[in-house]
Amino acid sequence: MNGPHLSKGARQPPPPRGGKLRLYSNRFCPYAQRVHLVLDAKKIPYDVVNINLSSKPDWIYDKSPYGKIPALELDTGDVLYESLIIADYLDERYHQHLLHAKDPLQKAKDKLLIEQFNRIINTMYRVMMNIGRISLDDDETISNGLNTFERELAERGGPFFAGNKPGMLDYMIWPWCERADILKLFGNQHLLKRDKYKKLMEWRNRMSDDPTVKRSLLDSDFHVKYLQSHRAGMPDYDLILNSK
Amino acid sequence: MNGPHLSKGARQPPPPRGGKLRLYSNRFCPYAQRVHLVLDAKKIPYDVVNINLSSKPDWIYDKSPYGKIPALELDTGDVLYESLIIADYLDERYHQHLLHAKDPLQKAKDKLLIEQFNRIINTMYRVMMNIGRISLDDDETISNGLNTFERELAERGGPFFAGNKPGMLDYMIWPWCERADILKLFGNQHLLKRDKYKKLMEWRNRMSDDPTVKRSLLDSDFHVKYLQSHRAGMPDYDLILNSK
Repeated sequence: MNGPHLSKGARQPPPPRGGKLRLYSNRFCPYAQRVHLVLDAKKIPYDVVNINLSSKPDWIYDKSPYGKIPALELDTGDVLYESLIIADYLDERYHQHLLHAKDPLQKAKDKLLIEQFNRIINTMYRVMMNIGRISLDDDETISNGLNTFERELAERGGPFFAGNKPGMLDYMIWPWCERADILKLFGNQHLLKRDKYKKLMEWRNRMSDDPTVKRSLLDSDFHVKYLQSHRAGMPDYDLILNSK
Repeated sequence: MNGPHLSKGARQPPPPRGGKLRLYSNRFCPYAQRVHLVLDAKKIPYDVVNINLSSKPDWIYDKSPYGKIPALELDTGDVLYESLIIADYLDERYHQHLLHAKDPLQKAKDKLLIEQFNRIINTMYRVMMNIGRISLDDDETISNGLNTFERELAERGGPFFAGNKPGMLDYMIWPWCERADILKLFGNQHLLKRDKYKKLMEWRNRMSDDPTVKRSLLDSDFHVKYLQSHRAGMPDYDLILNSK
C-alpha cells in the first residue's frame, strides 16, 4: 500500500494476478483507508494501485466515474466506488469476520453514527485544509460530535463500539481518529484533552494496537508532513517512499 | 398520510396502538415519501404524524436529532432517521417483498445509482427552490444523469430497474420522478422530451400504475401549488386537506 502514486501519463498496470481484487487508492486518503481496513480485517487478498489525485492518469476515469478513489475493481471487471458502499459490499460478499452487527436495528444505529461522524469529518477537513484555525463554531461541532461518541462508548460498555473486537463503526471512523492529533497544531489544545474524552482516548489506544489498524497506521509525523505539503499546494503523496 | 401537519405548540400524539411503527413525515417531502414507499411496498402497518417543517413542535427534537424527518419510531422506542438508512433497515428487518437485490454486487451497483441520482436531486432542488431557471450547467447535470438511467434501464431490459416489479432503486428515485414535470415550468421544454428518454418515460408510466406508488402519488397540480407556496415563503403543507 506504500507503492508510488501513478500520475497522468503513467501506464495502466496489468490486471492483478489470480483474480485478486484491486483497490485504486491513495496513501493519505482517509476514505481509501476505510476500504483498506475492511479488506485487511476480513483478510481478503488484494492488490493496490495508488493514484496521484493532483494529476490523475486518464484511465482512472474508465474505471471509476468522476475518477473517484477509493475504487474497488472486481474479477468480473465491475468497479465499485464510495467507501461505505464498498465496505457494505465486502461485508455482505465475504462472510469471514462480519463487521456489521447482525441485528438490523443495531446495524442501522451504527450507520446513523457513521453518518453523524460526517459532521466531525467535514469540520476537520475545513480546518486542516483551508482555515488553519479552529473557530468557536468548529470547536462546538467537533466537541458535540465527540461527546456523542464518548457517551455511546460508555453506554455500550466497550472495549470497542462493536464489542470485544472492532466492527464496522470502529473502522469507518478510525481514519480521522488516527489524524486527530493534528488538530492540536491549529491552536486548540483543550479539544483533545484526555480527561474530557477518557473512553474515546482509551478506545483510540486500543484501536492503534489492533493488527488490522496497524497495517495502514501512520505516525502523526507523516500526517503532518503530508498536510503541510498539501497546504503548500504540492501534496507529496509519495513522502513515505521518499523518506526511506 | 394526508393528516394535518403539527406545528410548534401542538400536543404530542399518544404512542401508536398495537405496537405499530410510527413515521414522522411531511406530505410534500420526497425523502419522507421514500419511506412511505418502502413501508407500503412491504405492507408494514404504520401510523403517520405529519410535521410542519417551518415551525416544528419541540418534541420532534426528542425523537430525532436535529428534528429531521423522515424519522421512524419503533415499538422499542428507538427512532431511526435518514431515508436510505431507514429503507435498508426495513428491508433487512421485514423479509416480505425484498426490495434490495439478494446479490451483493447488484445491490452495491443499485446503491451507487441511488447515490448518483443525488446529483439530479440537488440540481432539481436548487432550480425549483432558488433559481427558477435552468442554466446550461444544470441542464447538463440533469441530462447526463437521466442519460445514465435511460441507458441502465435499456441494459437491464426492464420493465423496472429491479426486473418484473419495482425494487429499492425504483422506489428511491421515484419521488423526484413524480415531480419531474414541474421542471417544464422553469423554461426547459426539451429536457423531458419523450423521445430522448423513451425508456424512462415508459418506466414512469408503469411506476405511476404501481399499487404502492399510487398510495402516495400526487398530481403535478398539487406539487406545483405546494412549490408556489414554498417559493412565496409560506409552504402550505396542508393544501391537500384544505382543498377538500
